[in-house]
Amino acid sequence: MFPQYDVIVVGAGHAGCEAAAAAANMGSKVMLVTMNMNTIAQMSCNPAMGGVAKGQIVREIDALGGYSGIISDKSMIQFRMLNKSKGPAMWSPRTQNDRMRFAEEWRIALEQTPNVDFWQEMVSGLVIKDKRVIGVRTSMGLEIMGKSVVLTNGTFLNGLIHIGEKRFGGGRTGEKAATGITEQLVGLGFESGRMKTGTPPRVDGRSLNWNVMEEQPGDEIPGKFSFTDTMPLKNQRPCHITYTNSDVHDILKTGFEKSPMFTGRIKGLGPRYCPSIEDKINRFAERDRHQIFVEPEGWNTVEIYVNGFSTSLPEDVQYKAITKIPGFEHVKMFRPGYAIEYDYFPPTQLQPTLETKLIDNLYFAGQINGTTGYEEAASQGLMAGINAHNKVHEKDSFVLGRSESYIGVLIDDLINKGTDEPYRMFTSRAEFRILLRQDNADIRLTEIGHKLGLASQTRLDNVNQKISDTKKLIEQLNQIKVKPEEINSKLQDINSAIIREKTPLINFLRRPELDVQQVISFHSEALELTKNTPIEILEQASILIKYETYIEKEKNLADQMGNLDNKKIPGDFNYRNIPALSAEAKEKLSNIMPSNLGQASRISGVNPADISVLMVYMAR
Amino acid sequence: MFPQYDVIVVGAGHAGCEAAAAAANMGSKVMLVTMNMNTIAQMSCNPAMGGVAKGQIVREIDALGGYSGIISDKSMIQFRMLNKSKGPAMWSPRTQNDRMRFAEEWRIALEQTPNVDFWQEMVSGLVIKDKRVIGVRTSMGLEIMGKSVVLTNGTFLNGLIHIGEKRFGGGRTGEKAATGITEQLVGLGFESGRMKTGTPPRVDGRSLNWNVMEEQPGDEIPGKFSFTDTMPLKNQRPCHITYTNSDVHDILKTGFEKSPMFTGRIKGLGPRYCPSIEDKINRFAERDRHQIFVEPEGWNTVEIYVNGFSTSLPEDVQYKAITKIPGFEHVKMFRPGYAIEYDYFPPTQLQPTLETKLIDNLYFAGQINGTTGYEEAASQGLMAGINAHNKVHEKDSFVLGRSESYIGVLIDDLINKGTDEPYRMFTSRAEFRILLRQDNADIRLTEIGHKLGLASQTRLDNVNQKISDTKKLIEQLNQIKVKPEEINSKLQDINSAIIREKTPLINFLRRPELDVQQVISFHSEALELTKNTPIEILEQASILIKYETYIEKEKNLADQMGNLDNKKIPGDFNYRNIPALSAEAKEKLSNIMPSNLGQASRISGVNPADISVLMVYMAR
Repeated sequence: MFPQYDVIVVGAGHAGCEAAAAAANMGSKVMLVTMNMNTIAQMSCNPAMGGVAKGQIVREIDALGGYSGIISDKSMIQFRMLNKSKGPAMWSPRTQNDRMRFAEEWRIALEQTPNVDFWQEMVSGLVIKDKRVIGVRTSMGLEIMGKSVVLTNGTFLNGLIHIGEKRFGGGRTGEKAATGITEQLVGLGFESGRMKTGTPPRVDGRSLNWNVMEEQPGDEIPGKFSFTDTMPLKNQRPCHITYTNSDVHDILKTGFEKSPMFTGRIKGLGPRYCPSIEDKINRFAERDRHQIFVEPEGWNTVEIYVNGFSTSLPEDVQYKAITKIPGFEHVKMFRPGYAIEYDYFPPTQLQPTLETKLIDNLYFAGQINGTTGYEEAASQGLMAGINAHNKVHEKDSFVLGRSESYIGVLIDDLINKGTDEPYRMFTSRAEFRILLRQDNADIRLTEIGHKLGLASQTRLDNVNQKISDTKKLIEQLNQIKVKPEEINSKLQDINSAIIREKTPLINFLRRPELDVQQVISFHSEALELTKNTPIEILEQASILIKYETYIEKEKNLADQMGNLDNKKIPGDFNYRNIPALSAEAKEKLSNIMPSNLGQASRISGVNPADISVLMVYMAR
Repeated sequence: MFPQYDVIVVGAGHAGCEAAAAAANMGSKVMLVTMNMNTIAQMSCNPAMGGVAKGQIVREIDALGGYSGIISDKSMIQFRMLNKSKGPAMWSPRTQNDRMRFAEEWRIALEQTPNVDFWQEMVSGLVIKDKRVIGVRTSMGLEIMGKSVVLTNGTFLNGLIHIGEKRFGGGRTGEKAATGITEQLVGLGFESGRMKTGTPPRVDGRSLNWNVMEEQPGDEIPGKFSFTDTMPLKNQRPCHITYTNSDVHDILKTGFEKSPMFTGRIKGLGPRYCPSIEDKINRFAERDRHQIFVEPEGWNTVEIYVNGFSTSLPEDVQYKAITKIPGFEHVKMFRPGYAIEYDYFPPTQLQPTLETKLIDNLYFAGQINGTTGYEEAASQGLMAGINAHNKVHEKDSFVLGRSESYIGVLIDDLINKGTDEPYRMFTSRAEFRILLRQDNADIRLTEIGHKLGLASQTRLDNVNQKISDTKKLIEQLNQIKVKPEEINSKLQDINSAIIREKTPLINFLRRPELDVQQVISFHSEALELTKNTPIEILEQASILIKYETYIEKEKNLADQMGNLDNKKIPGDFNYRNIPALSAEAKEKLSNIMPSNLGQASRISGVNPADISVLMVYMAR
């Protein structure tokens, strides 16, 4: 009934879709198994992509040749570049998306990927032979054979939904949980744990009073995620901002005694940086209000996502409390918020390729690894898909470094540090964040994606053009010089220091108070030369000049780190035989079995002295 | 948390959506409760609306002010007028639809209906007080109070899915069944039964060989369902036709011993006129092939619906057999076909308004009444929604006659004859089918819809314009006369009898071999007068003239029948006190409690002699 596949992907959320697309586009025969073909690429949480650090990940996925950026662009209803007032390392693109369009665009994209087959059914187990996965088993008892399997089960593994004191099985509200896989993997020696996440109530936009909320429109000149030729928006839908208050908090507190969080019925830890409203009230008792971000669910629908009001309190308490939020006085709810507990597998059980250490050719991606967030999931799916393809085609494994990408940071953190609460990406997790900018994701990764067979030649040509145009512009700005008498009155007008001698334009660009457009306006030749230059090139040149020293410094640090990363540790290295290592280092290193010294150095509990010992040892 | 509603609708399929829209548009405050807001208006079966007798129903719904016609038009990918070569009573519009668009358009339409609120959860019971429904209870234990409740549970009540020897609970594949309601209603004295239906496998269009199948394109000049200003299609997607053969049948037979149908595991009866492929092979053993109608699922998707191959045989047998169908040699399946058993309530337990006899203000619509088909469900939903609104607003009940509409035939059949197998509409079920044409649904019903407050004034103006334009055209064709010398050579050319005297154009229209365009071409004045006349008016005039005598005859019959329908029977009438009635008539009449003599006459087992007795009795 089924051929043997190269890669079987279980689950069709952000991780599963990227994994299937990547492996198929590289040439693997892929089977994507989903419980329901109508729910492919559902945005289970809020209808938005990107944001701080996450927007960078989407652009990295796009540069490598993944689909999340393109799909987000095609389905966006609003675009904002967050943190534009801060340094460029913090600039973070975010889209609001039409939930239905997003899912539909993903499904169309997958259907148009010739190597992707589909099967609609629950996977209830793996077929394993000699510690190697060779297929999956479905709830009907079918076996689908494949050379590798990528598990992307999201919140579905033994999913348990909580609302107040009520609880019921489910992978999302209205959808069945998936059973069988955890039990089998634990039987095979995997360690599993429980995590929890939650969602806010969905409400009827027709019942809200928008006038008392603060409107947050999209950018005046909206951008987009993808480096391909997707179109920016002509029209956008605004979000709105409102706040809770002490009335809201007081009502919510009346439900605390029935809260599944506070009464201990929920065992798993929730996402620290995306807490439920009851958690926020509890942890930040001094704050008398919390922001509520009111997000439209699409172009046409009246459904509204009440971001910031995630809760698993009893539904009547949710309702009473939400009506005290300004603008929500007459709210009609479509459904209450809820918490969901699900199984994950501590990701220290994975290799840097996302292949499990215990079972060959078995890959995990997304929430099953203890992460939270669409972008984190999608990027893991992409990496797992690439590596599953490479493995079954006997190609080298593919690992991104911490200095190349947030994706590298993410996976390196996961496999080395593990996580016992849902892991979310932040710019602060990256030690080289001035290198890992959203504006240069294509420069960093397109060539890599092209070599993998994912990013097209056109993409590569475009990025090379961008690099050379930027270089040329910088040279031009260095050559064009202005005289003091031409510019000093202007400089005084804008409170910038006057010059005393002929100065190249590029020098002005280093001044924090001047932006690239201003600098160009200082000289008619510069204006003339750049009249057709895309804003992207202007910005790129500006960033490279303004932040030149920081960038250089981080590059040097990264090179040093890279040296450690290049020092491979044999797979069978026996740490217990090295007396000079600390006991903790021996244990952690034996547990994680890092593949190089760089990785070893980033394991919590392994200190620089241990690394020195290892360096000495390996030099022999 | 919830206000008190006028009408609570449980279920958001074709019946539930129409019920909610109708009641809301008439002014009721409506709550639509659905298990999953993402699956509102799912086409559970094939992606098409209308067809023989069903297309007439869609146009009737549209004329009354329901939404099914408009939604179908907005989401269609192909339009065909079936049976165009037969008489106009048989003309039947059908659309192929984009499954996702259909659901989305319904959801948008409902969201734009101001009086409709939504709640996403399973309804597990009714709140009943003094034999009157006053609300519903949800699976979380919430109570939503309402003055009336319309149940439209489709196949979800204790839904049980069968594939070969496997079975599992579910309302559709991948979706949970609904529990609790049947048990409660049976406890209240309702009789319930089991029915079954089934669906074919869904397959990947990329794996089919289209060249060996027969293409069935849409009409060259595509029409549409709605009498409103929806747009006809500019582009269409074709369907394809292929056939099973003895190889296919032989393979399917190898699964018969595991068939849930043949081994008695399925108790409920399936749809006689939409049987599974194994049923067809079994019942029509002499036929060596059955037609397979290959339907695209939408504009963009590669998913294909294999109409005619509904089956609940084991999935490996399904697969092996389907590969023997020409064009399907290399088929990839997305999911197997399956059968589903579900609870229904014999509809003789209903009043003509679809209100239950046992519980006041409780209405049933759709498959819960033992029908099959989107159109049958939608029309019942519309009628239940209208009547629920009218009842809670103390207005007259609304019943359509058998001579006014297929909807009237449907409900009259259901409540009087009952059904123990899924009831589907056919033109043969209507005794006045020359009156119940698709072309005059607006003339028959728009005024009624307008009086109800559903059809707009514009619609009424349009239909009045259509009536007067048609009348005017008929008069003109009667006044314009042609002389023998002007026309006889033309008539001879087209093998039509020559004329001997000056003849009005209208007379030619009565000739079967001549169509209206030809007749108009016989005279330049007619051509000039009709150069801007819409095709709809030309056809209407043509039908009225060509079928004048049939139409008149049926109208007279209908009037006689109408006289019986107008003879009301008191609600407390005691048939057992009338010795002259046959024993069977006493029993059936006491059971059904018809509201008038016409209804009484249509109850199986009640013969004309019984009616005469009743007429005498009631005349006293």
